[in-house]
Amino acid sequence: MPTLIEAVPNFSEGRRPAVVAAIVEAIQAPGVLLLDASSDADHNRSVVTVTGAPDAVLEGLFRAIATAAEHINLFEHRGEHPRLGATDVVPLVPIEGITLDECVALAQQLGARIGAELQLPVYLYAAAATRPERRRLPDIRRGQFEALVESIHQPERAPDFGPAQVGPAGAVVVGARPFLVAYNIYLGSDDVEVASAIAKAIRESSGGLPAVQAKGFLVEGQAQVSMNLLDTAQTPLHVVFDTVARLAGAQGVAVDRSELIGLAPQQVMLAAAAHHLKLPMDEAERTVENAIRRKLSQAE
Amino acid sequence: MPTLIEAVPNFSEGRRPAVVAAIVEAIQAPGVLLLDASSDADHNRSVVTVTGAPDAVLEGLFRAIATAAEHINLFEHRGEHPRLGATDVVPLVPIEGITLDECVALAQQLGARIGAELQLPVYLYAAAATRPERRRLPDIRRGQFEALVESIHQPERAPDFGPAQVGPAGAVVVGARPFLVAYNIYLGSDDVEVASAIAKAIRESSGGLPAVQAKGFLVEGQAQVSMNLLDTAQTPLHVVFDTVARLAGAQGVAVDRSELIGLAPQQVMLAAAAHHLKLPMDEAERTVENAIRRKLSQAE
Repeated sequence: MPTLIEAVPNFSEGRRPAVVAAIVEAIQAPGVLLLDASSDADHNRSVVTVTGAPDAVLEGLFRAIATAAEHINLFEHRGEHPRLGATDVVPLVPIEGITLDECVALAQQLGARIGAELQLPVYLYAAAATRPERRRLPDIRRGQFEALVESIHQPERAPDFGPAQVGPAGAVVVGARPFLVAYNIYLGSDDVEVASAIAKAIRESSGGLPAVQAKGFLVEGQAQVSMNLLDTAQTPLHVVFDTVARLAGAQGVAVDRSELIGLAPQQVMLAAAAHHLKLPMDEAERTVENAIRRKLSQAE
Repeated sequence: MPTLIEAVPNFSEGRRPAVVAAIVEAIQAPGVLLLDASSDADHNRSVVTVTGAPDAVLEGLFRAIATAAEHINLFEHRGEHPRLGATDVVPLVPIEGITLDECVALAQQLGARIGAELQLPVYLYAAAATRPERRRLPDIRRGQFEALVESIHQPERAPDFGPAQVGPAGAVVVGARPFLVAYNIYLGSDDVEVASAIAKAIRESSGGLPAVQAKGFLVEGQAQVSMNLLDTAQTPLHVVFDTVARLAGAQGVAVDRSELIGLAPQQVMLAAAAHHLKLPMDEAERTVENAIRRKLSQAE
């Protein structure tokens, strides 16, 4: 199988199309596939989604980060979204044939290069964080660019790579995290309390399933458990479905249907199939399409 | 999504590696991906598996069929496996973004070209058959090459394309059929009778599920229902699993595990996931990997 990562860099530019175009152009190094690019003028921010082999994606990211640093001046930047730098945050996400730990190593490699070659301060976050207080992005970003200019010399704000000084391009936050799956389950009930009780029972913050965020809603008269699955390796999507179905059943309510928002790694769906069919995971992965992809990646 | 078919042509040569190599070389027209090639000396036969976009695969097949006709003389061919021609049979199989009916049209197109340009008699079989008695391969191949030489002038043996005369390359049988999935379910029982009774209940030939062949076995002391799923669009794999689980449960026996032999189209696994999760099929198909493949096929 090919080794695939995804990267979703956020750039602090959402108003000047030419600058966004230059960044999107730069990121497409050989072997990098652009999946999406969207800009928000109010946030004055653009989010770009790319995928490919790790080396290719790292090269594309480096070029895009250099381009952003060249064109974006944080001293002049205004927008609703909090930010620390021209390239604000770069999450690396394992998709296939690669672990989260290996993505942490890639984040370190990219961070070191940004620090050395672009002379920008770099903070590692999420699974790549070097200190517990740097795991969460809001914690790192507190006070934003303007505060960092003043405080970067303090020991607790020492960057993981690059100089402890802030120029017009600000700082870059680089890290690794699992793929986030946004997933909703609709219940055969118009009682939002049922959905809220189930959400409370399953979310990690109230002692439920690891890496699950959940909240109950009433959507067009139907009770809905709305979830973010932050790490489907820890808590697979089908385990979430089965748990919600069991809890709903205990209240005499059936699951009506479920809904995937955006994309999910193939792994998530194949694991659900393997679970239902009592099939080994490596056999569920033995699809014609995967055989083709394996052949093509060998041929390269 | 890219449009993909698979073809599994059988050639009547399994002893001369240079001839097999020439055929395998010829079949790899631009855009054709070779998945497998295996030769059997006793059968004196080679089976080649290729995939790709329909036009590419048809071109590759035509080149391979021309090469086989050039190098293989059926008047001198001996082997255990029944055969009618140098290229004996060419099944076209829909994989993705294409229907079985569209593969029938491709079989007609390929057959017409073989008849016109190579002047070989062509019979259409399986879903592409023009007469009921030509649906099954053994019926078409009855008496083999040697009988066809004598009988091709009879009206019931009139080819669908090409001349009603047999040269050293014999005749080619071209057709379309669904992907065949070989699938076994192991029961929590050492009683082969349980497996045999379930097999009898589910196989089409005794009034069970459409397009399902099934037989009960005892494999290393464990009861096994062994199946060929001839058309998973008609009877999905998860329907077979659920039916076997229900029938076993009615006898107080649980399903222990299931087993996939060879490959299955991705569609089969995603349909099982969608079924378990009560998820619309188009959402189960929304994987990162499919998004990448869609992007890549658009880029071409």
